[in-house]
Amino acid sequence: MTPYCMGKADIGVVGLGVMGQSLALNLAGHGYKVAVYNRNRERTDEFVNGPARGKDIAGTYSWQELANALQLPRRVLLMVKAGPPVDAVIDELLDVLEPGDAIMDGGNSHFRETIRRNNRLTEHGVHYLGVGISGGEEGALKGPSIMPGGDKEAWDLVQEPLTAIAAKVGDEPCCTYLGSGGVGHFVKTVHNGIEYGDMQLISEAYFIMQELLGMQAGEISQVFESWNGGELESYLIEITADILSRIDKETGRPLVDVILDKAEQKGTGKWTAQEAMELGVPAPTIAEAVFARALSSLKEERALAAAKLDGPKQPFEGDKSRFLEDLKQALYLSKICSYAQGFAVLKEASRTYGWNLPLGEVALIWRGGCIIRAGFLNEISSAFQRNPELSNLLLDPYFEKAIRVGQASWRRVVATAVAAGIPVPGFGSALFYYDGYRRERLPANLIQAQRDYFGAHTYRRIDKTGSFHTNWI
Amino acid sequence: MTPYCMGKADIGVVGLGVMGQSLALNLAGHGYKVAVYNRNRERTDEFVNGPARGKDIAGTYSWQELANALQLPRRVLLMVKAGPPVDAVIDELLDVLEPGDAIMDGGNSHFRETIRRNNRLTEHGVHYLGVGISGGEEGALKGPSIMPGGDKEAWDLVQEPLTAIAAKVGDEPCCTYLGSGGVGHFVKTVHNGIEYGDMQLISEAYFIMQELLGMQAGEISQVFESWNGGELESYLIEITADILSRIDKETGRPLVDVILDKAEQKGTGKWTAQEAMELGVPAPTIAEAVFARALSSLKEERALAAAKLDGPKQPFEGDKSRFLEDLKQALYLSKICSYAQGFAVLKEASRTYGWNLPLGEVALIWRGGCIIRAGFLNEISSAFQRNPELSNLLLDPYFEKAIRVGQASWRRVVATAVAAGIPVPGFGSALFYYDGYRRERLPANLIQAQRDYFGAHTYRRIDKTGSFHTNWI
Repeated sequence: MTPYCMGKADIGVVGLGVMGQSLALNLAGHGYKVAVYNRNRERTDEFVNGPARGKDIAGTYSWQELANALQLPRRVLLMVKAGPPVDAVIDELLDVLEPGDAIMDGGNSHFRETIRRNNRLTEHGVHYLGVGISGGEEGALKGPSIMPGGDKEAWDLVQEPLTAIAAKVGDEPCCTYLGSGGVGHFVKTVHNGIEYGDMQLISEAYFIMQELLGMQAGEISQVFESWNGGELESYLIEITADILSRIDKETGRPLVDVILDKAEQKGTGKWTAQEAMELGVPAPTIAEAVFARALSSLKEERALAAAKLDGPKQPFEGDKSRFLEDLKQALYLSKICSYAQGFAVLKEASRTYGWNLPLGEVALIWRGGCIIRAGFLNEISSAFQRNPELSNLLLDPYFEKAIRVGQASWRRVVATAVAAGIPVPGFGSALFYYDGYRRERLPANLIQAQRDYFGAHTYRRIDKTGSFHTNWI
Repeated sequence: MTPYCMGKADIGVVGLGVMGQSLALNLAGHGYKVAVYNRNRERTDEFVNGPARGKDIAGTYSWQELANALQLPRRVLLMVKAGPPVDAVIDELLDVLEPGDAIMDGGNSHFRETIRRNNRLTEHGVHYLGVGISGGEEGALKGPSIMPGGDKEAWDLVQEPLTAIAAKVGDEPCCTYLGSGGVGHFVKTVHNGIEYGDMQLISEAYFIMQELLGMQAGEISQVFESWNGGELESYLIEITADILSRIDKETGRPLVDVILDKAEQKGTGKWTAQEAMELGVPAPTIAEAVFARALSSLKEERALAAAKLDGPKQPFEGDKSRFLEDLKQALYLSKICSYAQGFAVLKEASRTYGWNLPLGEVALIWRGGCIIRAGFLNEISSAFQRNPELSNLLLDPYFEKAIRVGQASWRRVVATAVAAGIPVPGFGSALFYYDGYRRERLPANLIQAQRDYFGAHTYRRIDKTGSFHTNWI
């Protein structure tokens, strides 16, 4: 007798990777009866006889068995690899599901794919929800940040379990229905783009401490630990301090020093930057973070280049503790600009795709559970409470003041890195974003003149309406 | 009696916009009999009775008439707006063309679309060529740079007329068959991405002269004119000097000062940056140029921000003529890095798509006719002659030396702009690219550690092979 014969399961989980297993355990821990399925039956057996033993989690070994195990209307959470596997699983599920059932895709799917799948399933009467889930393994197990978007009917069916397993900040769950279509996956994508930005900025601070100030990993760890007390308080700063304090048992060296410096990526940061371009919204810091990972992967080329290409070699001659204060400001202000870019992308996407996305709510559900969780997001949420139509975070008084206070430090850090030959594409692009955004007049008038000169593309004037063309030649 | 009754036309041109008209005239000027077609017959009449009067150019007023007017196998050059119009015209042409005929798309089509269309036409036995054409109106008329890619059979049919109308540098035509599939349009796209970079870098030099040095347009014009004599010699520097010297007749002010600073874009720069991300090749300067145009278009927001957001206000206190020398170096070295990025994108695309693209040839056909034409491209061509497998321009001795000589100037300019609050995303991203590329060790080890910490993504080590995971918590 399989366990679900004792009563139908509340929810099905398809795909038993790290995230699928953790979410199934999280659901069971909140009193939900879970039926699980994995295309490889050994994985299912290992899970139900291992981590899931003694819990209300039943293995199923065919699509039909999974469907039979679920109470009606059925709720199925897909935790399979983004891309073609999602379509393959949907094909199988369509054979066994009925109108009124609901599928949730909890992976990092591209939002356009989610829109396409949603439309396809609507034809079959099956509800669909694209669900962004952030928090890694630990978050999935103990409470992730959850970003659902898609059919309202699907949300009504799954609101209770999703809200139950989500992270909580105080009593508030980090899970809110964000709207129709692909909005949940879009918000998750931008979350990850911001995460790329954060990680790049932290790595630049680390690199400056190491290369310019000559600090060792342990000492740098202490700096990050102290920074975690203030406005930079966040999960990523916390784990950075932890990482830098770790000693490799085999070599006795700091573990970070023996890790290869080729950063990998799975695509969401890239999608954020590409979509920002598609929408015409500047997001240079996120793009630089993506390119920095690409550059890091050219390790062999860089080794060749290092032997050939020259750089400055003067040692640091300032006051180290003052410079560390400057560096903290540089990191904080760059972070503000990176988030400003991410939220501007969300705002424009919401306008373009008609999502009516509540930006303040997005900040709220990112406060806990997810990788970019931080006290900082309370301030972003407050900014959108003060002005729900806020067009850019930089225009909010809180952030405007923060930059006013810290910008001299920020500029000193970037200028020092430039002189010392330390690449700071994150810090620099954020600063240029700020300096460009606050300019009423930019040199794009010259670009328009050039375009008219060589391509007769016309230009507009500051003193009258209409399009103009000059016969330049 | 219509003119083509006196003999079939050598080539057909569909679409009589600025570029289509100019190319038809260029073809006729080289002794080719041309049949033209435009969906709006008035445009055709205006052209044949206007600029084309007395030339061997015949108007046609239906697809069938166009087909009948052409000698076999037919050669048809499409100069219609990129996107759905190209497919619409192909649909019409398929009704009247025969196997063995050839269609060339001379617009700025996305290379993936060109591949798709090529495959479609192959099924009909019609040859297809995606032809990048650069040079604007003047180039199209007097000799553009031409970048053809697609069916070799199509190239054999059109090589003679395309080569005849192309720009010449000495005796060499700026037109070379680049390979199969969408390679011609890809090369044109990257050409335009590099053009975006050049224009952004020039606009930053202009902005620094105006905002930091307090120079007026006429004086800035003279600086660009002087720069056009040296390593910066190029069409874009030349027209910039010309633009800045132009006085607006109505206001008596420099014309550039009354042009609105909202830069427009048509997509090729964006495609270059997006494709660089897709390929995993860093192209931050091109991306920053795209984002700078996007930022410029937020004029109303910037006006609001300018009233709120603070910046430094100290005046320039150095030696102006020395600083102008530094600025010239900053522009030149940033340009080298921007081209290095563009050529790296071409190289990786060639590898990924199996194009076997001759990079030195690309540099050669960009020397004349196109918007980025410059003596500088001889140096790039020489670099690829010295080493056809060169992985990055920065590794060539000529460019390595140029950067060694000028980098202190470059760093001074970027650091000064940072301190003065002048946005230099182009200069800065290029410098960070250089400083990142020449580092054997980058801080991506920390990023890999973070990814393993929160997502169990594993990392590699510098001292042994394999993937490793640390139980961090």
